[in-house]
Amino acid sequence: MLGIAVIGCGTVGGATAKLLVDEAERIRDRTGKQLVLKYVVDLNFEHAKKIGLDPKYYETDYQKALADDSVGLVVELVGGLTIARTIIERALKAKKHVVTANKALLAHYGPELFALARQNGVSLGFEASCGGGIPVIKAITDGLQANRAEAMYGILNGTCNLVLTEMTEKGRSYGDVLSQAQKKGLAEADPTLDVSGKDTAHKLTILASLVFGCRVSLESFTVKGIDTLDLFDVRMGQSMGYVIKLLAIAQKEGDALALRVAPVFIDRSHPLARVSGSFNAVSLYGHAVGHTMYYGRGAGAMPTGSAVVQDILDAALGLSGILFGSLKIWPDITQPAKLLADAQVMSRYYIRIMTDDRPGVIARIAACLSEHHISITSLHQDEAWRDGDVIPVAITTHRASRGDVLAAVETIGKLPEIKQPVVCLEILDEHKESVE
Amino acid sequence: MLGIAVIGCGTVGGATAKLLVDEAERIRDRTGKQLVLKYVVDLNFEHAKKIGLDPKYYETDYQKALADDSVGLVVELVGGLTIARTIIERALKAKKHVVTANKALLAHYGPELFALARQNGVSLGFEASCGGGIPVIKAITDGLQANRAEAMYGILNGTCNLVLTEMTEKGRSYGDVLSQAQKKGLAEADPTLDVSGKDTAHKLTILASLVFGCRVSLESFTVKGIDTLDLFDVRMGQSMGYVIKLLAIAQKEGDALALRVAPVFIDRSHPLARVSGSFNAVSLYGHAVGHTMYYGRGAGAMPTGSAVVQDILDAALGLSGILFGSLKIWPDITQPAKLLADAQVMSRYYIRIMTDDRPGVIARIAACLSEHHISITSLHQDEAWRDGDVIPVAITTHRASRGDVLAAVETIGKLPEIKQPVVCLEILDEHKESVE
Repeated sequence: MLGIAVIGCGTVGGATAKLLVDEAERIRDRTGKQLVLKYVVDLNFEHAKKIGLDPKYYETDYQKALADDSVGLVVELVGGLTIARTIIERALKAKKHVVTANKALLAHYGPELFALARQNGVSLGFEASCGGGIPVIKAITDGLQANRAEAMYGILNGTCNLVLTEMTEKGRSYGDVLSQAQKKGLAEADPTLDVSGKDTAHKLTILASLVFGCRVSLESFTVKGIDTLDLFDVRMGQSMGYVIKLLAIAQKEGDALALRVAPVFIDRSHPLARVSGSFNAVSLYGHAVGHTMYYGRGAGAMPTGSAVVQDILDAALGLSGILFGSLKIWPDITQPAKLLADAQVMSRYYIRIMTDDRPGVIARIAACLSEHHISITSLHQDEAWRDGDVIPVAITTHRASRGDVLAAVETIGKLPEIKQPVVCLEILDEHKESVE
Repeated sequence: MLGIAVIGCGTVGGATAKLLVDEAERIRDRTGKQLVLKYVVDLNFEHAKKIGLDPKYYETDYQKALADDSVGLVVELVGGLTIARTIIERALKAKKHVVTANKALLAHYGPELFALARQNGVSLGFEASCGGGIPVIKAITDGLQANRAEAMYGILNGTCNLVLTEMTEKGRSYGDVLSQAQKKGLAEADPTLDVSGKDTAHKLTILASLVFGCRVSLESFTVKGIDTLDLFDVRMGQSMGYVIKLLAIAQKEGDALALRVAPVFIDRSHPLARVSGSFNAVSLYGHAVGHTMYYGRGAGAMPTGSAVVQDILDAALGLSGILFGSLKIWPDITQPAKLLADAQVMSRYYIRIMTDDRPGVIARIAACLSEHHISITSLHQDEAWRDGDVIPVAITTHRASRGDVLAAVETIGKLPEIKQPVVCLEILDEHKESVE
């Protein structure tokens, strides 16, 4: 029997509590473990009432739940970096297992929190923090250990993927799609954390640490969101066979790691290109297994609750303890990641330039690219795109270093004919499998 | 330290042994467990030599490996139902953990083998038996326990998926594609087990048992392969927005289970429709998590070896023992599945009829369908399809019971105008997620 306190009764907390109550008997019959909800802690029980949670669980003082010896596991679903951190720290110090979906907190304070869990002989479950209901952390920690990890590509933010899918499929602008999503409750009133790529960066920090067994810090890689994307580029990429996705990228290059969050073009035949709407997916490449992908709902009350309850069960079964005690991949005990300098990352690029339509400008742009050792794979300019005197030029490149590309883009941006900032997006070719 | 005997050194056995040797140090550093290859047992070491396995491991007598106390785990990669069964039984009786990729054996004798493992206090790992390197059994047994399972749809045979992908994308006939795949070594010389759907049936037996926690027997469901598929139907489906896939299907209907293996049309927007070539994927639907999908290489030496080595590691870490001891989903201790009679399965259908082009025939066909309570969603007949006096008529239906559809098809087949057997394929609509 494991007594559980769910702290924070919003959508995910409510769904978790409901699952614990409604599924207790089935889970006991299926797993031999009795998960017993003891407390639902919040200051406001409107949502709890709405979803029909029995008031006998309601408690406003989380310290009471932490002080109760019958509580063996605390679920933190408050969110944020302040009170949530205090709750987790106190729960761990009280030698209670903790399960959380708080990616921001783990991205900022993961090493400290895992160390505290280790000191107190308890475990910290966080499957729900990345990819919602998808058991992707299970796959990483307990599915692919035979492999030398080669790369991870993740679509990890449902709001961004929904917006990009609508832009791509319906040909509507970023602003239009976002405001409609907000009206429908599919995007936050303040969507900054999502559309800026920051939420994806939190998840990349967590996942890359585990996949590559090294400590990745949130400040160590560049993060670009979808908030500056222009529909023109989305459609241009589409016409070239690409789909735009906000990706969390982690690639092993020699003994270094190349990390970034950015909207990138991926080939429409790649399975990630087909992840639509609010779904998430993570592609993992290992030297033995090749390409694997994990797909599902990355957010939402019940999908996230599903992951939280599985984590609770893993703690009850003692599985979390074994993995936490045995594997050397947790960020409190790993070495800092050796990172590849951003300028050295090799990739293909899409560059779009708004230029005055004057003789010689294409030659000057091409010369600029050539001077920076960048080779062109395609160049498109179409009379129909003209907007007054200004006409867009869309270029795709062969593989080049990011440093060279950014330098070229800067130089091009200073040409007298160029009137608007140059757009530069990465093109991700299908990751080559090394499987024999 | 766990001593390991790999029995059967074909492609997967060789890759497993190589992984154990080459990755031993990294696995130890990463997991704290030392996996030590002790024996590679076979009668012929040509492959072992070819891949550079040290002859110090070679052993021709598996009984010697079983008698060695330093061997704690036996990997059975011999395949088939005879000697493989003896090896596993003896290994279990010698209280050694067993890991196998043998789906046929588990589909036939799973309950007996799991019972024997339980009696001897050891575990039986079989991640590699379904979906190759994809950690899908891990997802089922240790990822989604919070869920009431609703359905599983699996593309589980790489050969079939390769053949269907080529037929669809290149417009080539079944025979053409298959013989080319055989020449390239991508299909067996005798492909019967694959193309008949039998291999997929083995995997459905194993997976459905775990997903729904009941004992599914191999003889309890219908199995249809891809060997009778006509390119005309593949293309017809394609023109209607469907992709043909050989699927293992398990759907919960009330308290009963509807099982089958068949080539079915699925909507091209479903993620499974995009699983191409020799890749496998499994879609699992749970009441809380909604749709999740697991994708990767379903066969091949290294991908399968990846799953075998993870199973070995899980045994070494004690994880397999906990799951085997706690969960009540293993086929030695579950009740036989309550099955929905085939005739009662509801679905949509594609029916193609080759008919003499005479007045009134469409009316007679439509009357036949109507008499069996089948409602038509579309009917296509095109002058261009005519072949002499015979012309195909392609019909899609609303949801109807399989019993009604088969009865209608039989009646239609007896109409005097109908000269060839009527083709009938299921159309699988997107499974409705019940997630709130």
